Amino acid sequence: MRNPKSNLEQYTVVGQSIPKIDATEKVTGSAQFLIDIELPNMLYGKILRSGYPHARIARINTEKAKRVPGVVAIITAKDTPLIKFGFMKDQLPLKHGKVKSVRDEVAAVAAVDEETAAKALELIEVEYEELPPVFDPYQAMKPDAPIIHEEMKSNTVNLPFNFKHGDVERAFKECYRVVENTFKVNFVTTAALGTMGCIARFDERGDLTVWTNTQAPFEYQKDLGEANGIRGSRIRVIQPKIGGSFGRGMDVYPIDIITVLLAKKTGRPVKIVFNREEEFSASPTRQPCIFRIKTGAKRDGTLLARDAELYMDNGPYVSWGAFDARVMMATVCGLYKVPNVRFNAHVVYTNNPYSGTVRGAGNPQSTFAVESQMDMLADELGIDRLEFRLKNANEPGYITPQGMKITSCKLGECLNAAASRIGWKGRHKAGRNRGIGFASYFHVGGGARVFRSDGCGAIVKIDDFGKVTLITGATEIGTGSDTAMCQIVAEELQIPVENVQIVNDDSSIRPWDVGTHASRTTFIGGNAALLAARKAKQKLLEIAAKVLEEDVTNLEVKNGIVSSKIDSKKTMPYDTIVRRGHFKLSGEIIIAEAFYDPPNEMQDENYRGNISVTYGFGTQAALVEVDRDTGKVSVLRFVSVHDAGSVINPMLAESVVQGGVAMGVGLALTEQLIVEQGRVMNASFADYKLLTSLEAPPIEVQFVESSDDAGPFGAKGVGEAGVIPTAAAIANAIYDAVKVRVTEIPMTPEKILTALEHRQ
Amino acid sequence: MRNPKSNLEQYTVVGQSIPKIDATEKVTGSAQFLIDIELPNMLYGKILRSGYPHARIARINTEKAKRVPGVVAIITAKDTPLIKFGFMKDQLPLKHGKVKSVRDEVAAVAAVDEETAAKALELIEVEYEELPPVFDPYQAMKPDAPIIHEEMKSNTVNLPFNFKHGDVERAFKECYRVVENTFKVNFVTTAALGTMGCIARFDERGDLTVWTNTQAPFEYQKDLGEANGIRGSRIRVIQPKIGGSFGRGMDVYPIDIITVLLAKKTGRPVKIVFNREEEFSASPTRQPCIFRIKTGAKRDGTLLARDAELYMDNGPYVSWGAFDARVMMATVCGLYKVPNVRFNAHVVYTNNPYSGTVRGAGNPQSTFAVESQMDMLADELGIDRLEFRLKNANEPGYITPQGMKITSCKLGECLNAAASRIGWKGRHKAGRNRGIGFASYFHVGGGARVFRSDGCGAIVKIDDFGKVTLITGATEIGTGSDTAMCQIVAEELQIPVENVQIVNDDSSIRPWDVGTHASRTTFIGGNAALLAARKAKQKLLEIAAKVLEEDVTNLEVKNGIVSSKIDSKKTMPYDTIVRRGHFKLSGEIIIAEAFYDPPNEMQDENYRGNISVTYGFGTQAALVEVDRDTGKVSVLRFVSVHDAGSVINPMLAESVVQGGVAMGVGLALTEQLIVEQGRVMNASFADYKLLTSLEAPPIEVQFVESSDDAGPFGAKGVGEAGVIPTAAAIANAIYDAVKVRVTEIPMTPEKILTALEHRQ
Repeated sequence: MRNPKSNLEQYTVVGQSIPKIDATEKVTGSAQFLIDIELPNMLYGKILRSGYPHARIARINTEKAKRVPGVVAIITAKDTPLIKFGFMKDQLPLKHGKVKSVRDEVAAVAAVDEETAAKALELIEVEYEELPPVFDPYQAMKPDAPIIHEEMKSNTVNLPFNFKHGDVERAFKECYRVVENTFKVNFVTTAALGTMGCIARFDERGDLTVWTNTQAPFEYQKDLGEANGIRGSRIRVIQPKIGGSFGRGMDVYPIDIITVLLAKKTGRPVKIVFNREEEFSASPTRQPCIFRIKTGAKRDGTLLARDAELYMDNGPYVSWGAFDARVMMATVCGLYKVPNVRFNAHVVYTNNPYSGTVRGAGNPQSTFAVESQMDMLADELGIDRLEFRLKNANEPGYITPQGMKITSCKLGECLNAAASRIGWKGRHKAGRNRGIGFASYFHVGGGARVFRSDGCGAIVKIDDFGKVTLITGATEIGTGSDTAMCQIVAEELQIPVENVQIVNDDSSIRPWDVGTHASRTTFIGGNAALLAARKAKQKLLEIAAKVLEEDVTNLEVKNGIVSSKIDSKKTMPYDTIVRRGHFKLSGEIIIAEAFYDPPNEMQDENYRGNISVTYGFGTQAALVEVDRDTGKVSVLRFVSVHDAGSVINPMLAESVVQGGVAMGVGLALTEQLIVEQGRVMNASFADYKLLTSLEAPPIEVQFVESSDDAGPFGAKGVGEAGVIPTAAAIANAIYDAVKVRVTEIPMTPEKILTALEHRQ
Repeated sequence: MRNPKSNLEQYTVVGQSIPKIDATEKVTGSAQFLIDIELPNMLYGKILRSGYPHARIARINTEKAKRVPGVVAIITAKDTPLIKFGFMKDQLPLKHGKVKSVRDEVAAVAAVDEETAAKALELIEVEYEELPPVFDPYQAMKPDAPIIHEEMKSNTVNLPFNFKHGDVERAFKECYRVVENTFKVNFVTTAALGTMGCIARFDERGDLTVWTNTQAPFEYQKDLGEANGIRGSRIRVIQPKIGGSFGRGMDVYPIDIITVLLAKKTGRPVKIVFNREEEFSASPTRQPCIFRIKTGAKRDGTLLARDAELYMDNGPYVSWGAFDARVMMATVCGLYKVPNVRFNAHVVYTNNPYSGTVRGAGNPQSTFAVESQMDMLADELGIDRLEFRLKNANEPGYITPQGMKITSCKLGECLNAAASRIGWKGRHKAGRNRGIGFASYFHVGGGARVFRSDGCGAIVKIDDFGKVTLITGATEIGTGSDTAMCQIVAEELQIPVENVQIVNDDSSIRPWDVGTHASRTTFIGGNAALLAARKAKQKLLEIAAKVLEEDVTNLEVKNGIVSSKIDSKKTMPYDTIVRRGHFKLSGEIIIAEAFYDPPNEMQDENYRGNISVTYGFGTQAALVEVDRDTGKVSVLRFVSVHDAGSVINPMLAESVVQGGVAMGVGLALTEQLIVEQGRVMNASFADYKLLTSLEAPPIEVQFVESSDDAGPFGAKGVGEAGVIPTAAAIANAIYDAVKVRVTEIPMTPEKILTALEHRQ
């Protein structure tokens, strides 16, 4: 599919900063989130967790708990079909025999209200026999480490995300300078405002309806079905409004399956929603990683080789988060042009909480490592940090060692724009204790074929009042994708965007989509919507040809009016055309459907293949000031420049970047889930240092002029972009300010002070 | 569109008596009807009615009522935009200046609960100045009658439903025998279990969502919009499960508009649902009619002429019910072959409650007259009543005087089958005080083009699990049409019917349909579903051709398996084909849409035109016993034989006929809304003599072997059929038993006794 060349000025709806179509209902509180949904006769569930990082379950006694008035059911593993689930089918929803983390699910209660369920939880008696735990991936890889999954031989997960291209060893020998470091990213969590939850109801036929915050309703339908031994055809997935998700909604989790098990057991609808403490301690985190990385360049600044070894603290169960190693691989191999690369991943079971995939899907972690080294290497080479990046910047036509084909790419412009805007004058020129840092990113921007299908379906219906309904598989998780798709439909039909509404909450109605991940929704869902709208427009024009008695090729729509290009008298509002076509003998109505499956590739077993139709690029620049007495870093200015193709809605695109940067600044400086002995120690907003609006730096977002041939009206994905290079840019700015290189995030005042002390 | 010839044996799903797809949820009580729906922050409305049949409103004082704690709003006409609405735009939702019936709406309250609203209603003070009322259409037509609508010159509604064909005067002169009578049909009501109601909610954008029992959601959207001055594009119509409707849902009524007005005024969702007393006294009734009719035949029994004069007591406002005069016209002109016909209707305003259109849409009224006369004329001619009907029976190729083209027609077979089954041996042969009576019907069976479009849209989606969703405009009002359409889709796709689900509750999602009326839904909606399923099947086979590497023309689906007709090794379950086609590069999914607009005609200004693609026929036979002492009529046996084309689901078709017969027996013998001085005197189930299950006669339903070329798998409409000839058959049986001709229904014991006394 080749879409019209972008020239935003030629568009009337695309390129306009209209407010989110669901803004009003969210602001006024009328939007229905999962927590708002109450069904007749509904029960409320609570989950009992182990509290031990590694232990054998000796005995469970639920008798006392069962006697609490209002308790309807209590289930443990023995009440379940013991079907393993998950990315590697390595866990049970309710654990059997052994618990492998403190948050492991041991029993669940359904009661008439949450208080009763909580009371019953306290009365469930579980005896454990403690086992030696292991919390560190290095330790876990040692031969004498306690084996977490006893049926396996080691704690290393069988996910050999290893890639090699060129002759890395020889290339390093040819390098003029080589830097080698170890970077560390700790536990962080999504801190989504809408906590995890599920409502499950079986109808009289035994068919299941679930209300869930999933980002991937059709995968959820399949996976939840398999986990419960129910055919997907008997499961209907409804998505209420989603209060943030950030990747958390990519997997099926124990909470989902347990809700279904309780609904099955009780024959009543059951709702489980995490409270904030549960959300902090039992929802999936970003993968903590250790990155050993080595990068080398020639004397003239040409990058020659990069070699990375990743140690991922996976916790005891594998989620889609482990797959993020492959995103990290793409960054190591593809951010800047590097001819010789090697990437090895070690995904390691530990007794820590298990992770999920979180916004950027590993890219913030790997970009922190790669871009920190870019500055270090530039300095070693004595080349300006901006020049060094420009010299190695990706460009159109470049193919990464993994075979990712760069089509549209304005990374060079992004670098220059960021440098110009932040006022880069060379290193250590920002003022006393002040520094400027850069970091760029390379991310999928035209889908990501990690499932066998990367498609999205869409149906466009135009009614007699000219109201257009877009029924799409694509899921809105707060990024504004629904609004962007409505703009795309309105632009294609040349009608006011207020006339377009979107329907995408019910798997039994909407066409298939793989889910919202990998910054794909505006691109893929947008292309599907565009195709369906194009067909609908064709039908409209064909009807208009009959109504206006004009050749269809002479007709056009502008601002909702269908007109002949050659006879100005032949003109009529589009909704009148619809009615004229409909209300007559042999009438017609306008419905069109389309499925857009992008021409990207599933990578082969060697991790080669053009996984995305196009890629997103961008550069961030931070101006920071470091307080040498307290170690506190203040981000004085933050510039975020993106090549996201044509921007469908500048205000929303800017918002999504701003949110990403705020998340990235948190990742860089403040956010950490303190996990000690496998237990989350700061499970509250008071203790988990999410950036507040007052703490967020001023963020300047800029989009370079760009258009992608494959994107809907030239757009590329940008949903995750904001968070990806932020930590690296800030780390580089800190170094520029006070010449200390911090290799572990968050870069807390303590770490800065320690680093300053070591330097002195 | 020409569909495959029916031979029910060739089908696997069509022709099977599967239970209604929504049976379980209705039986268990989990189905959500309007009354079950509760929205957050919802208010409850109540309507104050005039209590006077004809009066001027002098003053309304709502001050006391407003002070009732919990009352949120009280509205009268002055709070409304005074937009007239209805079939003839002759009424306001809240009356202004004058009330024209005792149920006229004068004020409405929204309060936190129904009790509070009811309390406030009692405190609203209204002063009236009484005006002379008129309750009888003959009186109302007199020049000195009080004029109900002062802006009009007379009480005769400007709806000249007059038709003439042939030379009626001369034909009557040529007749050997002529009978002339006046028949009367009194007020009856639908007595639907689910009472009338509406929930309205405005969102923050000012867009309106309504939950309603409408049968015609898209007409409702348009009409409700016009009545409130809101564009249809800003109205979303949701239909919960409908607890019976019987035509009541064809119009927008004051209750709908008042609910919207209260929601607008309060900014909160408002629900108004009639209690049973309101349902009896304020929901639309069947039109009370007086039928002066004259029929004549030649000596050999050939019908020559029929002339009917209809006086319809319309009440003060015109609904779609007035249009039923046109259905009566069709019966007068088309039931049996009559070359010379005249029909004149007088639709007359009175101060009685106003009527709606009710099941059969006038046909039970006219068939009572026409078929009573058929017996009388046969007796006059000395011809067997069955033979007389057979001689004049409609047949394929016949065109009625109005231009209705009879295609499939087995009226002769129906007559013979009914006679054979009931044991007809000639008149007065059923035994002492026992009698047998016949009556046939002629009704639209392939749509009815009374709107400019008679179409229905459908979308068929096949998901990866093989689950098929039919999204249709067609509305289920309890007849089983949803089930029939699922069977049609399953038959076309050759898959189990359990794999098909239906979605048709939301105007923002479903394609357009004109509404459920005129026995059109299985025919029109079924054809739309069939067309969409056919396209989906074609897509499935095209995908299968690639997957199985076989020419598409060699492929077929049987019992859910796609196979090559020439290579038995090439075979695969259809859902596997779907997944194979989907989960690959350049994948496809299966969605198909269709719009079926039947090739029927809108009648011209002279009431000529083939209004339906095909027509339904049938004959009922009643065996009754009359108690000469009490006048009580017992229906001992009741036979109902139909030419409904191929029967998609015999059990459901039988059920819908049985329900119709029960309604018809009620109409014949027991049901009457007693209206005195414009006021309903028996507004309760205790007083309104609806047939209970114990009182219903044994009903034997039979379908003659038939198939219609235009129907989906040969089907024709049969939804209304059961009720149409019942009263006539019973009247004829009563005459056969005791030789009294009762010309007014219901034929209560009092009327029978009076008639017997007069005879003696």
